[in-house]
Amino acid sequence: MLDITLLGTSGMMPLPGRWLTSMYAKYNGKGLLIDSGEGTQIAMKENGISTHDIDIICFTHYHADHISGLPGLLLSIGNADRTDPVTIIGPKGLKRVVGSLRVVAPELPFATELIEIENDIQHLSLEGYEIDAFKVYHKITCYGYSINIPRLGKFNVDKAKELGIPLKFWNRLQHGESAEEDGRIYTPDMVMGEARKGLKVTYCTDSRPVPVISEMAAGSDIFICEGMYGDDSRDNKALEYKHMTFSEAAKLAKDADVEEMWLTHFSPALSRPQDFVKNAKKIFPRTTAGKCGMSKTLKFAEE
Amino acid sequence: MLDITLLGTSGMMPLPGRWLTSMYAKYNGKGLLIDSGEGTQIAMKENGISTHDIDIICFTHYHADHISGLPGLLLSIGNADRTDPVTIIGPKGLKRVVGSLRVVAPELPFATELIEIENDIQHLSLEGYEIDAFKVYHKITCYGYSINIPRLGKFNVDKAKELGIPLKFWNRLQHGESAEEDGRIYTPDMVMGEARKGLKVTYCTDSRPVPVISEMAAGSDIFICEGMYGDDSRDNKALEYKHMTFSEAAKLAKDADVEEMWLTHFSPALSRPQDFVKNAKKIFPRTTAGKCGMSKTLKFAEE
Repeated sequence: MLDITLLGTSGMMPLPGRWLTSMYAKYNGKGLLIDSGEGTQIAMKENGISTHDIDIICFTHYHADHISGLPGLLLSIGNADRTDPVTIIGPKGLKRVVGSLRVVAPELPFATELIEIENDIQHLSLEGYEIDAFKVYHKITCYGYSINIPRLGKFNVDKAKELGIPLKFWNRLQHGESAEEDGRIYTPDMVMGEARKGLKVTYCTDSRPVPVISEMAAGSDIFICEGMYGDDSRDNKALEYKHMTFSEAAKLAKDADVEEMWLTHFSPALSRPQDFVKNAKKIFPRTTAGKCGMSKTLKFAEE
Repeated sequence: MLDITLLGTSGMMPLPGRWLTSMYAKYNGKGLLIDSGEGTQIAMKENGISTHDIDIICFTHYHADHISGLPGLLLSIGNADRTDPVTIIGPKGLKRVVGSLRVVAPELPFATELIEIENDIQHLSLEGYEIDAFKVYHKITCYGYSINIPRLGKFNVDKAKELGIPLKFWNRLQHGESAEEDGRIYTPDMVMGEARKGLKVTYCTDSRPVPVISEMAAGSDIFICEGMYGDDSRDNKALEYKHMTFSEAAKLAKDADVEEMWLTHFSPALSRPQDFVKNAKKIFPRTTAGKCGMSKTLKFAEE
């Protein structure tokens, strides 16, 4: 089970009743947060998520509305008695930015491990998450993230019996490990079927709509995408400030053939995003205007 | 008229429904903010206060819960189309701390003027506010602030007529300026009575109860004081973390003979501060447990 919570939906600045855009995932007891603007830690508390349960923090970019909540969040993680390390991932400059912001949070009871993304597309395996960071197109260097939970193939009981594999090794093989006894080697490929469809969530803000987004979002169960402007007539603004309209996001969702899209990162001037969601639905019907605290539990398909 | 709004009442970390401790004053169109933790700009918006109207920001100290909202606030001030400069006041280290935090808010459409407090007690005259900063006793260097709006004496019409002061100079003299005509000099002391009682608000957090606080708060119309712990049995914690219990704050209010005290900066563990306010009222009856958005308009006394 992969739990996804959209913590906020605001872009540029936090508003009463609308937290800044951020996402929290929990899988197998491990928490992953993407972006942490001013107030994100309050949004977590509102949704019953303990700041203790943050193992990974990914930053899309270093505009204040996506990262200025970090020092307060780190202190709250510490106040929640976390002593396990926290991994922080972000574009180049991460060490400098985090170091600067920590001027007001210099002492923490846990270690931080900082990973700066080096390439336009980069894969990371952490805490059971298979993470793909991909460079998008904003005013400053900015990355989107795909979070994948892979699923192994089915274990073929009949074949395991036929090959005489001792029962005590079955569990090990099911988890992708090999075993050896009396000179015989048992490998997963002997008894495991093709890898099955896993779970995938893609998060992308802030960016113009560029092809890499739909390529990386392809087949996602949830595609969380910025929609700074609801009205297509604001496309000049979207172009100028390197953001997207709802329609532009919908085209990406359609190209990526995702299960569903949640729009987020609304302009402060967009007081009722739901009034404009029809502009996206025309292109990609499975679109929802995100709301703070919106959540979904994704499960592997029955098979 | 001096409008005072207590924007938040939380200490250590922001909570759902409880913003971090901060105060906003408005006098004669000029806005003064004390402290800006994570979420303070949202609290301002909730109370209908435009981020545009911030002329002065005073920082008590550089713990994250008092300053980490600064970069987002500065950007919001800019987004509210402010071009007039903003003066920022705080303990030594202000330039380093503000410079570091601005790593995510490097470009602003207005200038910032940074004033580092040099002395244990320091007076500043800015935008019609007479500000006294005074060093208190916390884990790191921390200051309290008294905000004074002075009031000149009464203009003596009979005396002005008796001395034959031309009518055209009266307004000037009433504003404390001198005038000269035909070799005759007119000075305010000729026609102005003794200075009358002005308005005074004192704000103090985070500190142990030290005598300078009641000395500087003496005679305040409102004394906004930290009360981290409601229960007197927590005095060991107050001592350890350099904070106060409600009772300790009340003793300061009593010594300072203030008009009223608003308690604030409550521990996150103190979920119902009002249940403990009796501990303060026993010592200083005109105590209120602060609430986010609590406000009062102070006016010069009729006379």
